[in-house]
Amino acid sequence: MVTARGLWNMACSMTLPTDPAKNLADLIRCPSVTPEDAGALDTLARMLEPLGAKSEKPVFSDDNTPDIANLYATIGEDGPHLMFAGHTDVVPVGDPDQWKYPPFAAEIADGVMYGRGAVDMKGGIACFVAALARHVEKNGPLKGRASLLITGDEEGPAINGTVKLLEWARERGESWDAAIVGEPTNPEKLGDMIKIGRRGSMSGRVTVTGRQGHVAYPHLADNPVPGIMALGQGLIANIFDQGTDEFQPSNLEITTVDVGNPAVNVIPGKASLAFNIRFNDTWTAESLQEEIHNRLDEAAEHDCAARGLEAPVEYDIEWIGRVSPVFLTRDEKLIETLSASVEAVTGERPKLSTSGGTSDARFIKDYCPVVEFGLVGQTMHMVDERVPVSDLETLTQIYERFIQDWFG
Amino acid sequence: MVTARGLWNMACSMTLPTDPAKNLADLIRCPSVTPEDAGALDTLARMLEPLGAKSEKPVFSDDNTPDIANLYATIGEDGPHLMFAGHTDVVPVGDPDQWKYPPFAAEIADGVMYGRGAVDMKGGIACFVAALARHVEKNGPLKGRASLLITGDEEGPAINGTVKLLEWARERGESWDAAIVGEPTNPEKLGDMIKIGRRGSMSGRVTVTGRQGHVAYPHLADNPVPGIMALGQGLIANIFDQGTDEFQPSNLEITTVDVGNPAVNVIPGKASLAFNIRFNDTWTAESLQEEIHNRLDEAAEHDCAARGLEAPVEYDIEWIGRVSPVFLTRDEKLIETLSASVEAVTGERPKLSTSGGTSDARFIKDYCPVVEFGLVGQTMHMVDERVPVSDLETLTQIYERFIQDWFG
Ligand SMILES: [Zn+2]
Ligand SMILES: [Zn+2]
Repeated sequence: MVTARGLWNMACSMTLPTDPAKNLADLIRCPSVTPEDAGALDTLARMLEPLGAKSEKPVFSDDNTPDIANLYATIGEDGPHLMFAGHTDVVPVGDPDQWKYPPFAAEIADGVMYGRGAVDMKGGIACFVAALARHVEKNGPLKGRASLLITGDEEGPAINGTVKLLEWARERGESWDAAIVGEPTNPEKLGDMIKIGRRGSMSGRVTVTGRQGHVAYPHLADNPVPGIMALGQGLIANIFDQGTDEFQPSNLEITTVDVGNPAVNVIPGKASLAFNIRFNDTWTAESLQEEIHNRLDEAAEHDCAARGLEAPVEYDIEWIGRVSPVFLTRDEKLIETLSASVEAVTGERPKLSTSGGTSDARFIKDYCPVVEFGLVGQTMHMVDERVPVSDLETLTQIYERFIQDWFG
Repeated sequence: MVTARGLWNMACSMTLPTDPAKNLADLIRCPSVTPEDAGALDTLARMLEPLGAKSEKPVFSDDNTPDIANLYATIGEDGPHLMFAGHTDVVPVGDPDQWKYPPFAAEIADGVMYGRGAVDMKGGIACFVAALARHVEKNGPLKGRASLLITGDEEGPAINGTVKLLEWARERGESWDAAIVGEPTNPEKLGDMIKIGRRGSMSGRVTVTGRQGHVAYPHLADNPVPGIMALGQGLIANIFDQGTDEFQPSNLEITTVDVGNPAVNVIPGKASLAFNIRFNDTWTAESLQEEIHNRLDEAAEHDCAARGLEAPVEYDIEWIGRVSPVFLTRDEKLIETLSASVEAVTGERPKLSTSGGTSDARFIKDYCPVVEFGLVGQTMHMVDERVPVSDLETLTQIYERFIQDWFG
């Protein structure tokens, strides 16, 4: 049996990964465009070896999506348990000729490193690894455990990634006291913003069925288009709420309207629209579904009166995909320790925010308190994704300070 | 040179096509599903031979549509010139197993003949040929000319049919004093309705271009869906007119709305709708296009105020295909002679109507006054298309009476 002390002795015989720019360059050079791993997870596992990490690479699959490799790497044996979560897969590069520097070369020009994944989010991982290495270099073994939960399926369908990796770890007896997701959370400059929650997300499709016919004989047909337009307008005519102290107002977007009738002399038989709503903790999924139903019913009544119909149009509503519930992290130690670390390094307190899209934090919050904090997001998913090397250094210092203080 | 009298003597040596049911059976047995001719036009030309008809079969073609055979058959040498216009092509049969009798067998059961084209409109042609034959049998050569202008491209794209056939004939010096189109015009029973005009038809597409984005960041995007819905509602919110003595009210139908965005977390960048308007002589195409523009502008203004936008949504409008102008036949002799013929045979005066869809009469009206009168339309385009043999006899008598009186 190898003890923690034994691992520690082995680790000290190797070079510790204390340089975030070197860590990041090694990761960028694996072209891990989702769902390809391209050696990214093995590179990360090797990077963690000098820290004595125990790594496992569970592969998950299902019938309809590609097999996905994931990494769970843990350092330390017992005590408080911190999770760092993220992903090594990246979005496609688009036209590589449009890039100033090759997207998988990690070239540095004027102090800025270029490459797909630089900020989303190989950069976050590189800094956390460097922070752990610096902490261990200065203080010896962790006073607890730190585990990296890294998926290759965040930018893809997200089916064989974080959700299954969390279940897999729990089944092996793992539990965590707090988690940081290393996504790029800062809108403008490093230290701007910690995300402490997210609005919920829910999608639906509304369909009105009429009766197809010839445009010259409208009385023999029943055009569903006026009905679907009235229902759509009913969905967006009024705001849902004013927002709360922690959350933006809830917002509904109609994402598509589809009839698909190519014949100009034919009245179509069916029309549908889909919508997505981002909602705050003023609502539950259930109360919001009821509100949507009420709005549609009222719009149908109003349309009936306006058009002098015999009866309001009937509609079907189908809820699409799973609901992402709203969540808000209330763990004072986690939030305050991270905020203080940011302030100690940058001189400014970060904003605590719940804005923006969903992330894997929505799955982690069922296991432990979770916040998100990483690099500046401005170039994510764009051509010439890039990060100043100075930002890598700053984030590494913030993470190191956090590790220092959180483990106490 | 063969004179009219000479042709007449030749004709008398053959059997005249006085039986509309026999004529129709011969035509139905050619499976001339558009664009196939399947021998239908040759069958008709042979049927007309005993009447001394001079037949020509111009074939028209263009790059994108099938070659189409057409027939122009003329009887008589000079004097008033009557055109009978129609088509021998038929719509597809659908599932032949759903037919009570085979669709190209012309079987008669309980006094009813079954077959594709029975009423639309091989039946009309069969009756007109029988009427001509009976007239000639009783009265000798026509006191004028009668020409059959028959296309094989009415149910298809209508590009290589009546339009080109009319031009072709005019280039050869042909002109006409009046025309009957033998489409099925009667809604309920034979003699119900003569069509003396048609509403115009015009189609357009309205497009709103926004800015694509992520549903979680609506302020960075510009969703075109609310705009297209507001514009669509502006198009249909008010009636266009009350109709006139001769015409139904104008009517606009939105025939499609299309966004085609499959991603529930994406705000789309573009939305469009198409519409068709059937309009009466309250409008010209130009005044109507101006009205449409005004309605869209007003709807955009209203939407701007309702949503508190900085500026009204901008839209593009594209007019689709050619405008079918409204027309109304005012030839008293044509209308009155036909109405009186119907009344003499059926005992009831027909309704003069401008309702329903467009027909090839919209092209003929530029050459001479035109009305439409044929069989009962109830089974047209349906499985088990059929015609009572007694209706064939009645229509033949009406056409014969008309020929008698119109040529005077
Ligand atoms: Zn990411
Ligand atoms: Zn027809």
